[in-house]
Amino acid sequence: MVGKLLLPEILELLNEKDYQTVKEIISDWHPADVAELISSLPESFQFMVFRLLPKKLTQNVFEYLSVDSQKNILELMGNKEVASFINNLPPDDRTSLFEELPHSVVKNMLSLLPKEEREIAKTLLGYPEDSVGRLMTPEYISVKENMTVEQVLDKIRKYGSDSETLDMIYVVDDDGKLIDDINIRQILLSPPDRTVAKLMDHKFVYLNATDDQEVAVEAFKKYDCYALPVIDNEGCLIGIVTIDDILTVAEEETTEDIHKIGGIEALEDSYMQTPIPELIRKRASWLVILFLSEMLTASAMAVYEEEIARAVVLALFVPLIISSGGNSGSQAASLIIRGLALKEFGVKDWWQVMKREIFSGLSLGVILGIIGFIRISIWQLFGGIYGPHWLSVAFVVTLSLIGVVMWGTLAGSMLPLLLKKLRLDPATSSAPFVATLVDVTGLIIYFTIAQIILSGKLL
Amino acid sequence: MVGKLLLPEILELLNEKDYQTVKEIISDWHPADVAELISSLPESFQFMVFRLLPKKLTQNVFEYLSVDSQKNILELMGNKEVASFINNLPPDDRTSLFEELPHSVVKNMLSLLPKEEREIAKTLLGYPEDSVGRLMTPEYISVKENMTVEQVLDKIRKYGSDSETLDMIYVVDDDGKLIDDINIRQILLSPPDRTVAKLMDHKFVYLNATDDQEVAVEAFKKYDCYALPVIDNEGCLIGIVTIDDILTVAEEETTEDIHKIGGIEALEDSYMQTPIPELIRKRASWLVILFLSEMLTASAMAVYEEEIARAVVLALFVPLIISSGGNSGSQAASLIIRGLALKEFGVKDWWQVMKREIFSGLSLGVILGIIGFIRISIWQLFGGIYGPHWLSVAFVVTLSLIGVVMWGTLAGSMLPLLLKKLRLDPATSSAPFVATLVDVTGLIIYFTIAQIILSGKLL
Repeated sequence: MVGKLLLPEILELLNEKDYQTVKEIISDWHPADVAELISSLPESFQFMVFRLLPKKLTQNVFEYLSVDSQKNILELMGNKEVASFINNLPPDDRTSLFEELPHSVVKNMLSLLPKEEREIAKTLLGYPEDSVGRLMTPEYISVKENMTVEQVLDKIRKYGSDSETLDMIYVVDDDGKLIDDINIRQILLSPPDRTVAKLMDHKFVYLNATDDQEVAVEAFKKYDCYALPVIDNEGCLIGIVTIDDILTVAEEETTEDIHKIGGIEALEDSYMQTPIPELIRKRASWLVILFLSEMLTASAMAVYEEEIARAVVLALFVPLIISSGGNSGSQAASLIIRGLALKEFGVKDWWQVMKREIFSGLSLGVILGIIGFIRISIWQLFGGIYGPHWLSVAFVVTLSLIGVVMWGTLAGSMLPLLLKKLRLDPATSSAPFVATLVDVTGLIIYFTIAQIILSGKLL
Repeated sequence: MVGKLLLPEILELLNEKDYQTVKEIISDWHPADVAELISSLPESFQFMVFRLLPKKLTQNVFEYLSVDSQKNILELMGNKEVASFINNLPPDDRTSLFEELPHSVVKNMLSLLPKEEREIAKTLLGYPEDSVGRLMTPEYISVKENMTVEQVLDKIRKYGSDSETLDMIYVVDDDGKLIDDINIRQILLSPPDRTVAKLMDHKFVYLNATDDQEVAVEAFKKYDCYALPVIDNEGCLIGIVTIDDILTVAEEETTEDIHKIGGIEALEDSYMQTPIPELIRKRASWLVILFLSEMLTASAMAVYEEEIARAVVLALFVPLIISSGGNSGSQAASLIIRGLALKEFGVKDWWQVMKREIFSGLSLGVILGIIGFIRISIWQLFGGIYGPHWLSVAFVVTLSLIGVVMWGTLAGSMLPLLLKKLRLDPATSSAPFVATLVDVTGLIIYFTIAQIILSGKLL
């Protein structure tokens, strides 16, 4: 956290061109802190501060930098240096950097890599976007069944410095097929002459390179592990995925959900990094669709124009009634969307959900209905503003509230399930979407009840 | 995934009392799969299936079970067995189980533990809820600077089987103060006679036991690690936190955010596990507050009752206009709430955010305004329903849309920042909350513009 705390001081030093002091300050920091500092600096200073780092720290700091800062710094480097940084970047981090760069830049960078690394990079980029393959690193330790613990430890000493985690060792057969995983603990706790075969239990969990990243998130949550092996269609071990990347994926997925619940197309970059025209576009699409649908309210109101003209008092409660439906709808929608995302229940449990929601909706509707009734009664008592038929009006409002809140709750809870059933994203049933749906039907419920109760009186 | 797939078949076997077949099926499964199966079974079957497991698997499966299933199974066990399971549970998992149990049950269970474990359990429960202490496990490997790599490996062999991760070894001084962390890789890659002191770089990251769990989530994201050491106020190492627990905490935090954005008090249990009365209570509180605020719309409308009576056409557009404000407001709110949660920007960047939102809001308002204008013109052309002053009405609607959408966008974006500034949770500025706020002011904007433009014509 030190990186951000000292930001103002360091900015001042940079403006005063006192590079020596900056250099001294940051040389003791954790690479992640230096990276945080650099990523928070204006772009013009990022490369400058990066240059102040002692040579042996640069690669480490570079790995912790945000992809945007990595991009920015690489642009200012010579080809030779770019090649060295890209070459030393762990393959999975390299994939995420390449994902953000224009195609031509990636092509150029690939050509700078030595042949072996180039092949690795190309293979990883060959997996579909959002697939496990894109998260994978081919740097892991694999052993054979007939090796002894001592030989395994030798192999770790030889190749372990590249491996992203040493928590798990993977056992493959002669064809490279994954046949087991062994915890490093078991290796460390066994006598040196024991063979790997003796440590195996043939129970292991794996991912497929073409699996969706969501599958990986689920697996990590379920199996409580730090790394999972990845196999290809033939069952051969081709890489591992580590939990730190999963944390990032899970976070991105939730951001998408929250944006959708708010009624926006999910942003690809962070809010501040998204150019304003794109920010507007992402919001305008849904906003316009909702606006067009909401126009039906104007049409619905037009149908009841005569009733409104005869009993203007009816118009007064329109916003109150439709918004109550919208509010209860967005409550239900966000509960159900999150429950589906966490796999707490599925589409097949719809009847369970519906029973709960009918009961909740009815109760909430009655609560609001009673409050509405009391409100109208009190105002009438002290101001008489609702006229001689105030009691009928109060009943209309109360019954409408019960109906609209029930309808809002049901629509808000069933819509995400319906979308899921249709293999669409449940989060698309955003709060604004449900509110719009409920607004139109809410007006019809309200005016229908009004026609029935008030006919012969006000209407 | 196998656990849930075979659920119907296994339920059938259980109903037919064919326990032998069930036993055979599950004996090959990964403990996490068995745990998933048990957690998905009706409560009456959970203990039964748990009993079918081979003895040596039970502890492992128990650790993977959901806290609810653990509770359920412990209730049906004898004291002696409870003692053994609770005793062997990793201390951090034990804390989360105890958090969910009634105080009297915890007290009873604590008394069943051997003295040493009881002290550990009590200490962990002594930390405030949602603090790092509650996530911590005291099972880690600590070494002294003067130990050799060989001695470290010996210690790992002796105590490593209890440690939750072996990825990191912690160095403490004679007072137990944490002075460095060392990656297991460095230990494995070094010659046996090298001392720990030679491997140290004195750069390490740590958490405080009393830190909020949110701090831990941030630290794990920033430092990209699998475990972090926890110290007390004196700087002494007292435990470690592992990333699997962080994944859970991060998920819970987002669930809370999503519920709040939907306008509900965050649920404590999952949706299905929450009793219906509590479900209603959690929703009713906000719904009633919003309803009471929304009543101001009825008052606002009452102020303009005369205008509405003279120009009923004005009432027709009320839902359209206020909902557009609400929709643009919830878009802005969910963008800003998520951005704040991800620390993409902070309260101090409010002016940056405001500039972006003024521009976005204005653009979006103009887009909707133009569409609204076209809609009224077309309907007028083909039906003439808006009367002779339709052009003025169209201008009122267009200008109101621009004003209301701008206001909605600004309110939706600034409210989360204001709440954060007041040290409240930004997610409290839910979509329904912003919509309600915008509804009342939206009406005032609309009728004020109408009074200005239509006075002398319709009004």
